[in-house]
Amino acid sequence: MNVTVGEIAAEVGGKVIGDVSVRLTGMNGIRQAQEGDLSFISSSRYLRYLDDSKAAALLVPPSIGEASVPLIQVADPYAAFLTLLGQHCPGRDTRPKKGVHPSAVIGDRVVLGEAVALDAHVRVADNAVLGDNVCVYAGAYIGDGVRIGADSVVYPHASILAGVTLGARCIVHSGAVIGSDGFGYVPGPEGPRKIPQTGGVVLGDDVEVGANSCIDRATFGSTVIESGTKIDNLVQIGHNVEMGRGCIICGNAGISGSAILGNGVTVAAGAGIGGHIEVGDGVTVAGLSGVTKSVEPGRVVSGFPAMDHERDKRIQASLRRLPDALREIRALRRRIEELENTRDGMSEDHS
Amino acid sequence: MNVTVGEIAAEVGGKVIGDVSVRLTGMNGIRQAQEGDLSFISSSRYLRYLDDSKAAALLVPPSIGEASVPLIQVADPYAAFLTLLGQHCPGRDTRPKKGVHPSAVIGDRVVLGEAVALDAHVRVADNAVLGDNVCVYAGAYIGDGVRIGADSVVYPHASILAGVTLGARCIVHSGAVIGSDGFGYVPGPEGPRKIPQTGGVVLGDDVEVGANSCIDRATFGSTVIESGTKIDNLVQIGHNVEMGRGCIICGNAGISGSAILGNGVTVAAGAGIGGHIEVGDGVTVAGLSGVTKSVEPGRVVSGFPAMDHERDKRIQASLRRLPDALREIRALRRRIEELENTRDGMSEDHS
Amino acid sequence: MNVTVGEIAAEVGGKVIGDVSVRLTGMNGIRQAQEGDLSFISSSRYLRYLDDSKAAALLVPPSIGEASVPLIQVADPYAAFLTLLGQHCPGRDTRPKKGVHPSAVIGDRVVLGEAVALDAHVRVADNAVLGDNVCVYAGAYIGDGVRIGADSVVYPHASILAGVTLGARCIVHSGAVIGSDGFGYVPGPEGPRKIPQTGGVVLGDDVEVGANSCIDRATFGSTVIESGTKIDNLVQIGHNVEMGRGCIICGNAGISGSAILGNGVTVAAGAGIGGHIEVGDGVTVAGLSGVTKSVEPGRVVSGFPAMDHERDKRIQASLRRLPDALREIRALRRRIEELENTRDGMSEDHS
Repeated sequence: MNVTVGEIAAEVGGKVIGDVSVRLTGMNGIRQAQEGDLSFISSSRYLRYLDDSKAAALLVPPSIGEASVPLIQVADPYAAFLTLLGQHCPGRDTRPKKGVHPSAVIGDRVVLGEAVALDAHVRVADNAVLGDNVCVYAGAYIGDGVRIGADSVVYPHASILAGVTLGARCIVHSGAVIGSDGFGYVPGPEGPRKIPQTGGVVLGDDVEVGANSCIDRATFGSTVIESGTKIDNLVQIGHNVEMGRGCIICGNAGISGSAILGNGVTVAAGAGIGGHIEVGDGVTVAGLSGVTKSVEPGRVVSGFPAMDHERDKRIQASLRRLPDALREIRALRRRIEELENTRDGMSEDHS
Repeated sequence: MNVTVGEIAAEVGGKVIGDVSVRLTGMNGIRQAQEGDLSFISSSRYLRYLDDSKAAALLVPPSIGEASVPLIQVADPYAAFLTLLGQHCPGRDTRPKKGVHPSAVIGDRVVLGEAVALDAHVRVADNAVLGDNVCVYAGAYIGDGVRIGADSVVYPHASILAGVTLGARCIVHSGAVIGSDGFGYVPGPEGPRKIPQTGGVVLGDDVEVGANSCIDRATFGSTVIESGTKIDNLVQIGHNVEMGRGCIICGNAGISGSAILGNGVTVAAGAGIGGHIEVGDGVTVAGLSGVTKSVEPGRVVSGFPAMDHERDKRIQASLRRLPDALREIRALRRRIEELENTRDGMSEDHS
Repeated sequence: MNVTVGEIAAEVGGKVIGDVSVRLTGMNGIRQAQEGDLSFISSSRYLRYLDDSKAAALLVPPSIGEASVPLIQVADPYAAFLTLLGQHCPGRDTRPKKGVHPSAVIGDRVVLGEAVALDAHVRVADNAVLGDNVCVYAGAYIGDGVRIGADSVVYPHASILAGVTLGARCIVHSGAVIGSDGFGYVPGPEGPRKIPQTGGVVLGDDVEVGANSCIDRATFGSTVIESGTKIDNLVQIGHNVEMGRGCIICGNAGISGSAILGNGVTVAAGAGIGGHIEVGDGVTVAGLSGVTKSVEPGRVVSGFPAMDHERDKRIQASLRRLPDALREIRALRRRIEELENTRDGMSEDHS
């Protein structure tokens, strides 16, 4: 990257405040920027980082018009920064080479599409079918009968177990496990007895599964994640869950068995959804909350047990006033006692 | 599978309402059922799914007697369904073949029992001992001196580290780590200083460890999980934990170092148990709760800090009424003020 | 190990109560101790375990002076026990042998320091640089351009992805993932659209990353973990997080994207830190709490939303009294009604 402030401004349709001829040689966040780097801030409260920053120029919102470096005003500095990043700093291609590495082990009746890349120590079990351009990093496991759609990427040490199906353009990050047994037992005289987990997992197109996340296979039928749903790291998805299109499931969340999520549901970090619960289209579940009963479409819920977010906020605000309220109750009781004493005195007067 | 409704009914001792001659060719849940599938519902509230279902017949409880498809009435439709599933849809065997795959790497002084299966890229370090019929999937790691009892199964990318012992018929799911270092440090002038973690991990028979769960080795002695205990995915078990027989530990739960759990303890999803705490036999810890002090046998606890579940429910119910209560307190104060004003007026009258 | 109580006492500067000639052949915790084992207790409340213990002698604090076995009084029995453990029971060396195992696959332009150990099925991609004495266990993945400092240890199935940098003496436990994509999307007409994650991860010296923990790469620039910070198992660290020196991050914790932690921060088990939050030097975040706004240095916070711990404790104590308070409010209302009735009666008397 070697461009001027003026050239960058032209590219993103921004207005320059300052020297258009300053040369930019890299891009980074305000705190990590080195000499020559273009950076950005989205609000004037981050201007305080500018003193210690080596950034050579900043993308800023129109509300910021003065600083010690050239500014490029745009409506959405973060979006503009990301666009420029993709164009000027795409990164080196570090994907495994096309072809099958000699140390990969491929089973019987496996079908590989065009331009598949299987890196070192990949294991593909019998009957698997991999679409064109599928890229499997070193040490990943593709089980018996697995089907992976074209252009999907499987990172190191991901385990895609027997019978699982992935659509096109899926991304499975390192250590993710798709198709582990559902957690189901019946009580027995000798302790819990395992229920056979005979079903599968079906992912649509453009699904992303984060590092070390787990999606259990169904007890029967399929655990289903529909197209465009994105799952962060360390997420647990139980057997027979059905999740709609375009959901966002953030890190450390847990979706218990047989829960049904609609389309466009957002589950924030660390939240839990109970088993057999239905969560409607477009619902947002706040971070660290626990959903214990079904939620109507479009609602925002929080807390544990999760409830309407506005109501939860009122309750939380009340809770912070509770110690004062308990003192107030004691004070009121004393005042009532005084009133009662006065009344009793008066009654005696009247008697 | 190709049987009639009448034949299935005979098998489970059920009573048919409708046409006994309808042919069944598969089994699935009500929402995923295809033409010819036997399905089930456990309550009339699921009858609403029947309109959109292609299920050809349903296992139902005796309380349901009418539907658009043949019904087979049984006491426990889900249990009957699971039994039939095991008999009619056992699934294809997709386990690795018996024997040692040429790409597996076996150390010195390793002892392998009869009919062991070690798939591609398995690493067995020196001095390990694997019992008869042990099955190790591709890429799993068996550390130095590990002992695994007969008929155990280790899934891809599980790591069983040096010195760990597993009983018979254990199941270790993909990516699970048994024998990682306990998390122990002492403060030092240069920051936290690592305490050597020199102990091991001992699992009894029939223990199941979920995908990407972690069981730390003991600082000294052993972390112990007794026979029949079942651990779900993404569970963290700290160093020197001792867990009894037949426990059920659900997904995303965390058991801190040196906690002691009795027999038959259930820890629901996302719950945490603090360090050095004792949890008695048969205790149930509710989901998302946090146990901060020891719990007597047989109790059901919930909340954070966890307390008797009935008490927690009362407190939670009270909490939901708190905003109203605060309004009520303000109203009462005003009424008291009025009473006080009246009294003071009267006092003046009397004076 | 074969020493006398007297010899051990001399080694730790302790005072013996009882027979100095008793021979000690091992070391273990009080509950697991076998015949001949030295054990310890840190408080008299653990004396109750002594009856069922086979321990031959105990390290105890000076406050304990009587028991059925010889006692060695020292100021800090646990610290003394750990010191003795390192000297007398160091454990067998089970690390992989120096050198490159023939089944390891090394890319182009890789630089290996002196005495590096790469065990079976390790994959090192192009351009990686490993310092002297680096030890990589079987099946670990070292991505393109990764740099690992001297004396670091990488356990089985850890994934260190392209471009990540580790300092000296780091420990990466089994299944940990460093450099997975940050979780970033922009809404699009077809659903969430992935933001390219082009940055890296930089770990300082002496950083430890627990089993199956995940550290995401930065969207741009670097996710940074400074020297001496210790991360437990199953911890999620989002893109662009910056974490200072000597932090302790306990199991199941989650640090959301772009959060900034100072030096010496402790995050207890299961806690969550929200995105873009700043947590000052020396802060302690209690277990299971959720930090939703920035925290000043040195504070102890707990609860969700996290607040000053003392205030949270008062609120929690109040909460436990809430059901009684609600009853009290009802009782006060009745007493006020009575007072009002009396007053109204009096008013009528007076009228």
